Amino acid sequence: MAARAGIVVTGTEVLTGRVMDRNGPWLAEQLRTLGVDVGRTVVVGDRREDLAAALRFQLADHDLVLTTGGLGPTADDLTAEVVAEVQGRAMALDPELEQRIGEVVGRLNRHRGWSPSPEIVARSVRKQAMVPEAATVLGPVGTAPGLVVPGPDGAPPVLVLPGPPSELQAMWPEALAADPVRAVLAAAVPIHQAEVRIWGPPEAELADLLRAHEQVHGSLESAGLEVTTCIRDGELEVVTRFAPAAAGAYDALLAALRDGFGDQLYADDGRAVDDVVAELLLARGATVATAESCTAGLLAGRIADRPGASAYLVGGFVTYADTAKTTELGVPASLIAEVGAVSREVAEAMATGARTRLGTTAGIGVTGVAGPGGGTADKPVGLVHIAVDLEGRLWHQQVQLGGGREVVRRRTVATALQLLRTALAD
Amino acid sequence: MAARAGIVVTGTEVLTGRVMDRNGPWLAEQLRTLGVDVGRTVVVGDRREDLAAALRFQLADHDLVLTTGGLGPTADDLTAEVVAEVQGRAMALDPELEQRIGEVVGRLNRHRGWSPSPEIVARSVRKQAMVPEAATVLGPVGTAPGLVVPGPDGAPPVLVLPGPPSELQAMWPEALAADPVRAVLAAAVPIHQAEVRIWGPPEAELADLLRAHEQVHGSLESAGLEVTTCIRDGELEVVTRFAPAAAGAYDALLAALRDGFGDQLYADDGRAVDDVVAELLLARGATVATAESCTAGLLAGRIADRPGASAYLVGGFVTYADTAKTTELGVPASLIAEVGAVSREVAEAMATGARTRLGTTAGIGVTGVAGPGGGTADKPVGLVHIAVDLEGRLWHQQVQLGGGREVVRRRTVATALQLLRTALAD
Repeated sequence: MAARAGIVVTGTEVLTGRVMDRNGPWLAEQLRTLGVDVGRTVVVGDRREDLAAALRFQLADHDLVLTTGGLGPTADDLTAEVVAEVQGRAMALDPELEQRIGEVVGRLNRHRGWSPSPEIVARSVRKQAMVPEAATVLGPVGTAPGLVVPGPDGAPPVLVLPGPPSELQAMWPEALAADPVRAVLAAAVPIHQAEVRIWGPPEAELADLLRAHEQVHGSLESAGLEVTTCIRDGELEVVTRFAPAAAGAYDALLAALRDGFGDQLYADDGRAVDDVVAELLLARGATVATAESCTAGLLAGRIADRPGASAYLVGGFVTYADTAKTTELGVPASLIAEVGAVSREVAEAMATGARTRLGTTAGIGVTGVAGPGGGTADKPVGLVHIAVDLEGRLWHQQVQLGGGREVVRRRTVATALQLLRTALAD
Repeated sequence: MAARAGIVVTGTEVLTGRVMDRNGPWLAEQLRTLGVDVGRTVVVGDRREDLAAALRFQLADHDLVLTTGGLGPTADDLTAEVVAEVQGRAMALDPELEQRIGEVVGRLNRHRGWSPSPEIVARSVRKQAMVPEAATVLGPVGTAPGLVVPGPDGAPPVLVLPGPPSELQAMWPEALAADPVRAVLAAAVPIHQAEVRIWGPPEAELADLLRAHEQVHGSLESAGLEVTTCIRDGELEVVTRFAPAAAGAYDALLAALRDGFGDQLYADDGRAVDDVVAELLLARGATVATAESCTAGLLAGRIADRPGASAYLVGGFVTYADTAKTTELGVPASLIAEVGAVSREVAEAMATGARTRLGTTAGIGVTGVAGPGGGTADKPVGLVHIAVDLEGRLWHQQVQLGGGREVVRRRTVATALQLLRTALAD
């Protein structure tokens, strides 16, 4: 059997959404590539009894349990203590660790120009240097050490990791090398994951294609394929996990998806639209400029998410006010007065304005009603016009989006990237 | 005792982070304001046995369990079926529901210009119209109905909600009105939540202030205060939950925080820096323009996150290439050649350029090394210069950030908003 791991993410701020958890998904992906199956993540607030219950739930049917967060200097940072209790281990001060953390904290405070009193520092350091007996100490990378806490009588170990994603990720190689973790990994069978992305059709068509495929080839599950489908910002994503033996069954599934969706299936190797657009731009040595109204910079910001974006992103314009569309992009005020700022004509003039202003190969113009106010019977909330000007040739798309201001703006960015991809691929 | 609810978020795409869960946190907050305590959220993949285990775990010590997602037309949408099994209920087709979903799907397809075959539609609709016996049907808002599935012999009910956040949120009022949910809510005791935000000091100082406070006033817990602290984008957030009887103890804590942090404590009523900046801009009738290099639009995009931002956001410039800094913002090419694009001088020239170009009250300039490439010994990755030009008066801040490209860009946006707040509040 494959090795199974369970994740426990701690922190009331995560539970209530004041902080988005990035550690649970990151760990799940890391473990998956190592062939360790992750079926459940529990998010718990900073409360002793909830954390203990979550640990016991995950320990019951897993080979390894990982925790994130709750290792800081404040009193609501309980993880080390509660893990020790659940694993039946006493806590003790590790003097050598205390000294190392003390040095890190001292350096950090000097670096930031902070000078808390020595007593404040000593108390914080001492709390973070308390470790369960028999635990392996990892790091620390920041101020908090990681821990591997073995269970009683060969019961599964708990790998305790810090909450800041950069610290957790930096500590990961050392965590994998710790003996109790290595023993679990030795039993893991690597699983392949394939990702297919489709832009255009409704989810029901995908559901039907999968059903039709199963009628010919038997159930996906019995063929050894674990298929997950989801819609993200209007795009269909088909993720399939399978052991090497099921590679043939996956090939048949991929062929069926290609047959069914043709050009709408735009990537079958895990690339996102961002990757495809970047490759298309680099391949033709093209540059791009943006002109955004309702998205107000989010499209340019997303294009710059990728390292190396400076090879094609020259810049862009946030023209939130109509006057800015005229002064910065040269959209005639008379055109805006005649057809309205949210129109095909203005989107196209914005795209062309951005392209000519910055002398790029491509320009993208986005104008829409993000809501909640500003809608009319003619131009309701969610109406968006997107245009691409590629070397003087124009592409245009009008969409009517639902789901509120945030969703409208996010889906507009996704749609604009897809229109740019279409234009570049033409 | 207060009512307790547990949340189960379904979807392999959520577990592995391809989709960020927004439902768990949203529901936790909604329940909290109703006085229902939420201690744990379980995220499970689309696998029958994991979902069943998660439901049983949450049902064991809660008065109500909520699920999100897994109600779509594809075969990996299992939630209704597995909830029925765990609650000991058979599934049956609801013909009236089948007709209603059919109408919704028909409208949706026409609206989007999709025309899947009638058989495809009928199969999808039928799957979504299968409901557990004795369940209350909610909606549907989109195509998937919500369900309230009672437990056997008075055991806790499960409230089954759809995955798309807009559908889930639109269904929420109807869910609260369903009899089994109302019975749970009747036992809830409203809990007050207070949020304090502090910009500047290290977390250790906060930890120490809280410890000192406890030495005088006794433990926070025994005073009825549940205090959670976290750092978000460099900001300290102190969230305190308490029943009405502990209001006096909270007042004493707040006074201690004000004493200890002075002006660094910039909001004690839940407002975020975005809210404070918007209020300061509106109060003086000020307008703002941005000039962004490394953040490439994310700052303007964040200012426009708030509805009504058009009252103060005129527009902005993404000047990713140095040439764009010169042509769009009038930053002298000689200045860039002399001191480099990442410098105090260029940040200030960008702020002033944006302000004068768009004729606004304030301009913000951001330039930095987001990484992973582009760093030098002199100007390492994470070095960022931020400037605000408010009616010709300049503010400047230099920061050295860690944590990788994404974190550097996000923290830069947060720091820029704080500098704008400082300038406006001066």
